[in-house]
Amino acid sequence: MTTNHQVKLATRPQGLPGPECWDLAEEPVAQPSEGEVLVQTLFLSLDPAMRGWMNDARSYIPPVGIGEVMRAAGAGRVVASQHPDWTEGDLVTGALGIQEYAVLDGSGLLRADPGLAPLPTWLGALGMTGMTAYFGLLDVGRPEAGQTVVVSGAAGAVGSVVGQIAKVNGCRVVGIAGGQEKCRWLTDELGFDAAIDYKAGNLGGDLREHTPDRIDVFFDNVGGETLDAALGRLARGARVVICGAISQYNATDGMRGPANYLSLLVSRARMEGFVVFDYADRYQEAATKIAGWLDEGKLVAREDVVEGGVAAFPDVLLRLFAGENTGKLVLQVGEPGS
Amino acid sequence: MTTNHQVKLATRPQGLPGPECWDLAEEPVAQPSEGEVLVQTLFLSLDPAMRGWMNDARSYIPPVGIGEVMRAAGAGRVVASQHPDWTEGDLVTGALGIQEYAVLDGSGLLRADPGLAPLPTWLGALGMTGMTAYFGLLDVGRPEAGQTVVVSGAAGAVGSVVGQIAKVNGCRVVGIAGGQEKCRWLTDELGFDAAIDYKAGNLGGDLREHTPDRIDVFFDNVGGETLDAALGRLARGARVVICGAISQYNATDGMRGPANYLSLLVSRARMEGFVVFDYADRYQEAATKIAGWLDEGKLVAREDVVEGGVAAFPDVLLRLFAGENTGKLVLQVGEPGS
Repeated sequence: MTTNHQVKLATRPQGLPGPECWDLAEEPVAQPSEGEVLVQTLFLSLDPAMRGWMNDARSYIPPVGIGEVMRAAGAGRVVASQHPDWTEGDLVTGALGIQEYAVLDGSGLLRADPGLAPLPTWLGALGMTGMTAYFGLLDVGRPEAGQTVVVSGAAGAVGSVVGQIAKVNGCRVVGIAGGQEKCRWLTDELGFDAAIDYKAGNLGGDLREHTPDRIDVFFDNVGGETLDAALGRLARGARVVICGAISQYNATDGMRGPANYLSLLVSRARMEGFVVFDYADRYQEAATKIAGWLDEGKLVAREDVVEGGVAAFPDVLLRLFAGENTGKLVLQVGEPGS
Repeated sequence: MTTNHQVKLATRPQGLPGPECWDLAEEPVAQPSEGEVLVQTLFLSLDPAMRGWMNDARSYIPPVGIGEVMRAAGAGRVVASQHPDWTEGDLVTGALGIQEYAVLDGSGLLRADPGLAPLPTWLGALGMTGMTAYFGLLDVGRPEAGQTVVVSGAAGAVGSVVGQIAKVNGCRVVGIAGGQEKCRWLTDELGFDAAIDYKAGNLGGDLREHTPDRIDVFFDNVGGETLDAALGRLARGARVVICGAISQYNATDGMRGPANYLSLLVSRARMEGFVVFDYADRYQEAATKIAGWLDEGKLVAREDVVEGGVAAFPDVLLRLFAGENTGKLVLQVGEPGS
């Protein structure tokens, strides 16, 4: 019998989630009942949204309970199956949680084809990250060819895919990211028309310079002063897509709202939120499109894969909030080839 | 030759516009040239939006220049015409400005029929106020019968019409206003389902109590904590209509943005601004509808008419920001019957 190492939520954070928030636990690996599958975790998806799941607040999904295994999407290998769709050795993605083994309802898993893309990409561009970018940009933002799309958190998992999908759709694309290296990656590798390093300290001026026709779609992952700067540059009829607000998730003195929100009135613009789960019946459409763009070289998928297993989760999660990752942050837990 | 008394913008305000902002001026009454009309002002429309026009900032309309007659809509009588559509004695509405006589392009005027409604109503429910309520609620808010509509500034000019149009459309309507007297007027005279006195100090709790099914459409004239409270009660797919933010117009330490804006994400909701001028080609549609509801008694128009002439404008304007008016605030300048 093997041991299943897990990370459980010990207490709810104030501000950045420190080590006190987590319990490292272990238990014997469970066995699947009828309809269930036992999955060995190989990679875990680390997402800014995790911070929200730690709060005891009404949201689009219930909070993680104290003492529960931390919620996480992951990719893994089926090691035992009592579900007709799955057999040992199948590679899947699903809500594995921060643990080495998960027993899950087999109907909640998706197949990951390693011939099409490496497993971490099934958590990124071909996973919820890609779905979020696809539906948020195209269905909520509704960019038209020739329009200006600005994305914040542009070198992050969702942002980098949003910008590339906007380019595929014929838009002028400007990314906002932290640091020259990320900005160079956006323009030189991903084909963004411009990238603004907000750490250079001239966000408003740089945004004016790089959006001569103002902003038709602003896809926001960041909030705070970034959102305010973009609101100040909206074109008439603009759409502001609220995907996240990573700058605000760890605020200890209350969220900062967008003081420039009356530019929605001046610009006859709208600001709209969405939750990717609402598009579940169209995931296949998005995955097929994104896989096609990957295959044609129109979209570059990048994952920032960190080793260390589940015990490293508390530290690696903090990289997201420090802006240390480029592309999708993934924690490696097992060996795909083993 | 008669004298035209005017109120001109002397300096831009910091906070509430005090007497230092205004110059009382006079000049001989001008005469119309070809295509123009001379209008004697009878009533002037006083609107929260005036505060925005006093700022030197990008908006949906240029700011009033220093030394210019303050912009205002008004109702008046044609006293001389060089325009084929108008003859002496016609009653009109238009951009008269805070002055006793205005020379205007005759093509920019609208006819006011005193047989249908008194002149002040042509600045309220049958004027831009009514147009703002009609298009903002129906085109931007898109309420459906049975849904819950909440309006702030509910006893004000626009808010009181919004709530009544929502009732006509079969909605459950809750108004937010300041003081028991205004609240009683909303429920007893206008047929609102409930009214919340924000001055009672329990806005969040009262809103929860009166919106058991949450809020489908929030029509906001107020901003600040009122907007935040409403954002915390949005139903899934809600629409937040940004019409104004009277609580913030005179802020001297920066606008307060809605800290609860991430509820747009949780609720898959949108927040959208609009400018009534964009609907100019449909004013006739709205005016016909509103006149019909007035005639059927389904809509009550109320104006708060204050005497005093143009010299009283600086003081009367402040009533808006103190919340002293109920219904449309109108300044009487001349005698309709004279």
